[in-house]
Amino acid sequence: MSKQQQRSKETRTRLLNAAEKCFAQDGYDAAGVAKICQYAGVSKGAFYHHFSSKQTIFMALFNQWLEGLDLQLTKLRDDMVDIPDGLISMAAVVQDVIRTAENQLPIYLEFLNRATRDPNILQAITEPFHRYHAFFAEMIEAGISRGTLRQIDPAVAARMIISMGVGLLIQGLLDPAGTNWEWATEESIKIILGGMVKR
Amino acid sequence: MSKQQQRSKETRTRLLNAAEKCFAQDGYDAAGVAKICQYAGVSKGAFYHHFSSKQTIFMALFNQWLEGLDLQLTKLRDDMVDIPDGLISMAAVVQDVIRTAENQLPIYLEFLNRATRDPNILQAITEPFHRYHAFFAEMIEAGISRGTLRQIDPAVAARMIISMGVGLLIQGLLDPAGTNWEWATEESIKIILGGMVKR
Repeated sequence: MSKQQQRSKETRTRLLNAAEKCFAQDGYDAAGVAKICQYAGVSKGAFYHHFSSKQTIFMALFNQWLEGLDLQLTKLRDDMVDIPDGLISMAAVVQDVIRTAENQLPIYLEFLNRATRDPNILQAITEPFHRYHAFFAEMIEAGISRGTLRQIDPAVAARMIISMGVGLLIQGLLDPAGTNWEWATEESIKIILGGMVKR
Repeated sequence: MSKQQQRSKETRTRLLNAAEKCFAQDGYDAAGVAKICQYAGVSKGAFYHHFSSKQTIFMALFNQWLEGLDLQLTKLRDDMVDIPDGLISMAAVVQDVIRTAENQLPIYLEFLNRATRDPNILQAITEPFHRYHAFFAEMIEAGISRGTLRQIDPAVAARMIISMGVGLLIQGLLDPAGTNWEWATEESIKIILGGMVKR
């Protein structure tokens, strides 16, 4: 990477961090390109070199977050020896997301919130749900055909796991001190597995 | 109820409906008392007779929604003969909420979203979570002591059920055509019960 490319990448990162801070502080509507530039310490010209609009940088933040989640899930699948243990190690992923998300919470909820008024964001949100659904359904199917899990509907079980994850995340984000969320997730998965494994 | 009281109640309802429409259309920040009054066809004087501010009417909407949910959960508990069947009939509650929430989806997400910037709303949101947690934990404890359920941690199991409900709701609201959500909820509860009931 040339020195110029390096600097361009740093500017982009600074803009994304500044945008995250602005959206979290002021909400999407009140946040503006001028303030994002001010926080990032860059010119408007630099902003528009990287992003065509406030919405573009908003979607870039969302995709950045998704990439992090995808990376963790893919790693999980590659490391997985068997289904029950693999699911239990998911608890650590949930906890990781909660731990790193303290500053990002407002932005996640803003994504959800804006999805109702913006079909692009709605699609950007529902697409990964479908992807994660396929991911877990495949895992569960493998467990059934290996004889680890009993005959359950993989699509239903996958949706249940995602639902539980989403619900735990939202509660954990809103109420981080409410319980030990990693432990709660692990124990929840154990109860669910009790209904899925062959005895 | 006198004729005047009757009219006052109607005005309040009209204002709440108009506010719901405004918040859903424009978001909280862009919505204004003037527009709410215009949609409701009432004067600003009438608005301020009923609500002291935009935030007050916003919180009133939230409480109205909670009251509906509380009513359904209480009914569920009173009608419940045993734990497994009671939990399965919860599926219908989730489906009901999704069915009636089409217009209200934006407002629910706006509650969540604003909770991150408004401690009053955060408290208004986390308080019912604690209440529902106690509700389900009590149900599960009863199931354990009656011998229907095996020895699981009622607090953990209750949190898992709430998480699944929240997750199913959010997915159902964002993607109503994604699946038959009532069926998905019912089948999910059956899998969970498989891990909870005594065999």
